[in-house]
Amino acid sequence: MTDYRTLRVALLGAGAVGSQVAGLLLRHGDELADRAGARLELAGIAVRDVDAPRDVDLPRELFTTDAESLIVGSDIVIELMGGLEPARTSILHALSSGADVVTANKALLATHGAEIYDAADQVGASVYYEAAAAGAIPIIRPLRDSLAGDRVRRIMGIVNGTTNYILDRMDTEGADFAEVLADAQRLGYAEADPTADVEGYDAAQKAAILASLAFHTSVPLDTVHREGITSVDAALIESARHAGYVVKLLAVCERIEDASGAGPAEAISVRVYPALVPRTHPLASVHGANNAVFVEAEAAGSLMFYGAGAGGVQTASAVLGDVVSAARHHIAGGVGVGESTRANLPILPIGRVTTRYQITLEVSDETGVLATVAGILSEGRVSIATVEQTVVADPDGGPGIARIVIGTHKALEQDLSDTVARLAASGVVERVVSVLRVEGD
Amino acid sequence: MTDYRTLRVALLGAGAVGSQVAGLLLRHGDELADRAGARLELAGIAVRDVDAPRDVDLPRELFTTDAESLIVGSDIVIELMGGLEPARTSILHALSSGADVVTANKALLATHGAEIYDAADQVGASVYYEAAAAGAIPIIRPLRDSLAGDRVRRIMGIVNGTTNYILDRMDTEGADFAEVLADAQRLGYAEADPTADVEGYDAAQKAAILASLAFHTSVPLDTVHREGITSVDAALIESARHAGYVVKLLAVCERIEDASGAGPAEAISVRVYPALVPRTHPLASVHGANNAVFVEAEAAGSLMFYGAGAGGVQTASAVLGDVVSAARHHIAGGVGVGESTRANLPILPIGRVTTRYQITLEVSDETGVLATVAGILSEGRVSIATVEQTVVADPDGGPGIARIVIGTHKALEQDLSDTVARLAASGVVERVVSVLRVEGD
Repeated sequence: MTDYRTLRVALLGAGAVGSQVAGLLLRHGDELADRAGARLELAGIAVRDVDAPRDVDLPRELFTTDAESLIVGSDIVIELMGGLEPARTSILHALSSGADVVTANKALLATHGAEIYDAADQVGASVYYEAAAAGAIPIIRPLRDSLAGDRVRRIMGIVNGTTNYILDRMDTEGADFAEVLADAQRLGYAEADPTADVEGYDAAQKAAILASLAFHTSVPLDTVHREGITSVDAALIESARHAGYVVKLLAVCERIEDASGAGPAEAISVRVYPALVPRTHPLASVHGANNAVFVEAEAAGSLMFYGAGAGGVQTASAVLGDVVSAARHHIAGGVGVGESTRANLPILPIGRVTTRYQITLEVSDETGVLATVAGILSEGRVSIATVEQTVVADPDGGPGIARIVIGTHKALEQDLSDTVARLAASGVVERVVSVLRVEGD
Repeated sequence: MTDYRTLRVALLGAGAVGSQVAGLLLRHGDELADRAGARLELAGIAVRDVDAPRDVDLPRELFTTDAESLIVGSDIVIELMGGLEPARTSILHALSSGADVVTANKALLATHGAEIYDAADQVGASVYYEAAAAGAIPIIRPLRDSLAGDRVRRIMGIVNGTTNYILDRMDTEGADFAEVLADAQRLGYAEADPTADVEGYDAAQKAAILASLAFHTSVPLDTVHREGITSVDAALIESARHAGYVVKLLAVCERIEDASGAGPAEAISVRVYPALVPRTHPLASVHGANNAVFVEAEAAGSLMFYGAGAGGVQTASAVLGDVVSAARHHIAGGVGVGESTRANLPILPIGRVTTRYQITLEVSDETGVLATVAGILSEGRVSIATVEQTVVADPDGGPGIARIVIGTHKALEQDLSDTVARLAASGVVERVVSVLRVEGD
């Protein structure tokens, strides 16, 4: 075996991902050394409880509760504790000690990314985070490096496996949200407290990270518009299917050019919401807990990256790829290349975004109602592309209810929401059943 | 505008890709400088004929026929001349002059890659070639970096747009090869001399590059088994469809583990041929001239990378990404990280590969023929999974001809080809219609 220089690797956290990372580091040590050009010595694993059960059988003597001592003297620090603290403090400590950092902590990067990248720049260190955006799918390097000479126009990502699993089963089985969620929890696809997934918080963190990279702009988490999938029901999915769509929770990162002079010439929008995707779109065939990121760039055209978005061993693959990169960089020398946020584009609020919409209304089945509805839309600058009206059977034999499904042309979100409010208050609309954006057509 | 250091960029070649690269470098200069942290000055464009027409309007004073003078003093040399010489000499000159090199030249890398990577290692320079394997699809960095901590088991790539366009149209329209090829030539999807594409030479070069990266092993081009698509006809495509398959020209790069002790414990196989792919496989829905690379890795699971495989401006995107990477590396300092070929796995000849097969035979419609055929297969260690026999109508009213389609279990290629030879010589087989490998199920 070649006589390589040894690099000290400190691992913080031994949960589902961390224990797999440790196991692979120990098992494939020689192979990784050949690839990195350096022997990767797992110096220790910092955990809260040394005796907690682990997914992988690991030597007991590696464990410590003293993360800070472990960090000192390490060349590479892998942070897999999750959460904001003490992860943030440990990463800043690692960088100031001269280590390169590998992390999968999307919450931390979406919240304190700028501080961490700055700290790395100060000392010429690097922060690697391939595992933070779409699990095992390589998307960070493609955006950061491969597309660095191009202009990304738009990203549409299915970046949360739990919600895709739920929506896919609802679509396939016609089941309702609560029912599938309970099943997903039982099978381990959803957590006991599913809020982070089903309310879109996890997807919003990933959207912030992807948009920062794609648009070379610092994207604070609170500028990401976020809606979850808890209001998606079986009827909505069925109605989407009828219109040729599937419902997906999308992270949309968009470059918006405005030649009108009314707003900035160039800006971005970052948003997460359940959207209607045409069944012919590549994203429509992303099933189960899989993730996919669809990228439209000016020169490269349409690209798609597909794979497992989560899972301990899958995510460990992305973490170890970063560890090898960090090791190569250590051996090669030179300072780290920081994140470029020099484009610094303005971030538009959701009201300033234009998309197409599908509006579903229940109205009283009377003469003139459609004309009234169409009038309100027209006054609100929302142009109708398609209309379908059906009469809903009334079991009580009362006055009939009709359902109107309206597909709009591109409209401004602010105009659309004002118009929907006017429809709701108009007297002819019994119920606004749903308002969904249409993406990808 | 920030006061960046200026890097001299020399461009060799101004064809479909080169002219787009020059245009984008000039048009997006400020943006690229912000991303690279350096001003990229296009110092000149070396071409054979200064007055030849170009796809993009470029300042005449940039052109020169003296590539070697242009190279001297350049920080980054972009080689887009194609072909083996003078590309090889120019790249070696650039590296020895201290420049980093960006190239899209798959023929050169597949043929002289080892020499070029060695020359780069000698001087601590880097060679970037994202555009050489699948056009605009970022696949080099994912394999080289993101999956560096994982073990790639298998790559199945649709890496040639021309043949995918032809096979896709044959599949969609039921048309025959010659007819679609002529149309593809008229539309610019295929060259006047289509040999490099339809005989699989282009795909074989890309397969060698992908396999080298995935398996950390130097893969000489002549170890890549290669078959083209010229014998694929409408009947074969129809019969594939009937069995639930689509025909795709695949580049297959496979890690083969053999615990039997009969061969090396671990080896690889790299091969290009038309194969049957189940219609439910993600590769089956790659249409038109698009490319996709499907990767199976031990930890990461299944990943797919999809996009445009060719085209001037699309490929220019990948080239410019490499230029920005090279510039960042120049600014950051440190030596280049060479290609790791330290695994150095043995490469198996095609005869030692096992796959599943579909064999289509025409036999005389007589008692006992199927038994004879089954006996020959069994003697040849080829195990039958499925059989379908149909009687082919004979317009002349002669003795009937039956068609037998046999799906095999996994068999050794050498056993299979010996068995097919015996079938052909058996007297009961009128014609071996086709023998195709089945991949992806």
